[in-house]
Amino acid sequence: MADHAPTAAVLLIGDEILSGRTKDKNLGFIADYLTVLGIDLKEARVVPDIEDEIVQAVNVLRRRYTYVFTTGGIGPTHDDITADAVARAFDVEIDHDPQAVEILLAHFKAIGREPNEARLRMARIPKGASLIANPVSKAPGFQIGNVFVMAGIPKVMNAMMEEVAPRLERGAPVISHTITIEGGEGDVAAPLKAIQERFADVIIGSYPFESPQGFATNLVLRSRDQALLASAANEVRQMAVELTRDGKVRGWS
Amino acid sequence: MADHAPTAAVLLIGDEILSGRTKDKNLGFIADYLTVLGIDLKEARVVPDIEDEIVQAVNVLRRRYTYVFTTGGIGPTHDDITADAVARAFDVEIDHDPQAVEILLAHFKAIGREPNEARLRMARIPKGASLIANPVSKAPGFQIGNVFVMAGIPKVMNAMMEEVAPRLERGAPVISHTITIEGGEGDVAAPLKAIQERFADVIIGSYPFESPQGFATNLVLRSRDQALLASAANEVRQMAVELTRDGKVRGWS
Repeated sequence: MADHAPTAAVLLIGDEILSGRTKDKNLGFIADYLTVLGIDLKEARVVPDIEDEIVQAVNVLRRRYTYVFTTGGIGPTHDDITADAVARAFDVEIDHDPQAVEILLAHFKAIGREPNEARLRMARIPKGASLIANPVSKAPGFQIGNVFVMAGIPKVMNAMMEEVAPRLERGAPVISHTITIEGGEGDVAAPLKAIQERFADVIIGSYPFESPQGFATNLVLRSRDQALLASAANEVRQMAVELTRDGKVRGWS
Repeated sequence: MADHAPTAAVLLIGDEILSGRTKDKNLGFIADYLTVLGIDLKEARVVPDIEDEIVQAVNVLRRRYTYVFTTGGIGPTHDDITADAVARAFDVEIDHDPQAVEILLAHFKAIGREPNEARLRMARIPKGASLIANPVSKAPGFQIGNVFVMAGIPKVMNAMMEEVAPRLERGAPVISHTITIEGGEGDVAAPLKAIQERFADVIIGSYPFESPQGFATNLVLRSRDQALLASAANEVRQMAVELTRDGKVRGWS
């Protein structure tokens, strides 16, 4: 079943993320969103506002995964070069899209803004692309082939994902189950590995964290198969009971 | 001057980031840190806990940039495969490192933990690597060639960056200056582009945001040349004065 799940990559575009000025929030949002849709996010990249870098990343990722989601670089200023880069990646022309121009002109009229050349630059869309509506600030994103080009502002991007969702093929959702061990990873590692080896279709992750009582560990089981997940979770709980009984961990939940 | 700055890539390793379960905070920290050191972060990638993916990303990035910083996947559990993947990327053996074993045994003794096989797995270090001290939880990271392998837990990674910093060649620091325009990007785009074209060695970014008074825009100028930066900033301020006088923006600061 897992073999048939659509796959995806995220491409974050912008100098401001690499300089540290902007702390990205888009990757986490898209990751959560795709998980709910049963689409496997397999890779993410962050590239600067350099056309060659964007072109290369788009072309590698769109050939490797079912979908590519980009954020950033579709505004009206000189550093917004994503649309041009994506057009070049697909080797198609880019020009003002009549529908996008209409959307923008109506919006500028409504809010009393001058429809200058820079603002209308946001209507430049690669040939063959379809628009992604932007209910927040109107300037649309676009889809070309399997690439979805969205804004970088989280509020706008989140709204665009809602527009994009109906276009996506979904997989069986991945279900997850978390068991928390009041102790370090080192004591669960060996029995956990043995359980992982018996359940190839359940992915078991181990994530230590600091709790007020000392180090603790979240054991996260993920699978598309609910019955398998339940069996594996039972074994992990049994392991937790035994570790607690032997005094190796302080408890579990 | 900019041509001689060291460059870097960040490689975040872990299923939990791609599933959305963990919201990454390491990229932003490293980005800020490298900016202070004058090292240009050029790219970041997130890959899952799959050995082939890690090997491929490490090999691409280490050949392309001065430094590569990885986070995640160096704990004691079965899903921690970063050290093995990095050894494979460099085509070297990996085994228990005597110094790392000594550090761990002393630590386990001090806190009364059993030094089991899984815990000592954290002492497996690729041949030829040097350790990166971990003042928080002792299990070390390592440096091999130009690749720095660090923990995924932010507190531990942050401490490891402090250990790594003295080993890094620094560039002239990039200085930044921000001017905030009380208005949308569309009105600043044309004059800003003209300024950018006159200052090739100043990178000017335009970042819109929503303020209580409506859309506003941060104009961020970045350069290694303080005099050039000051000249460009003066022109941007002059632009802001004119846009405000013409009523195109509500003001600036």
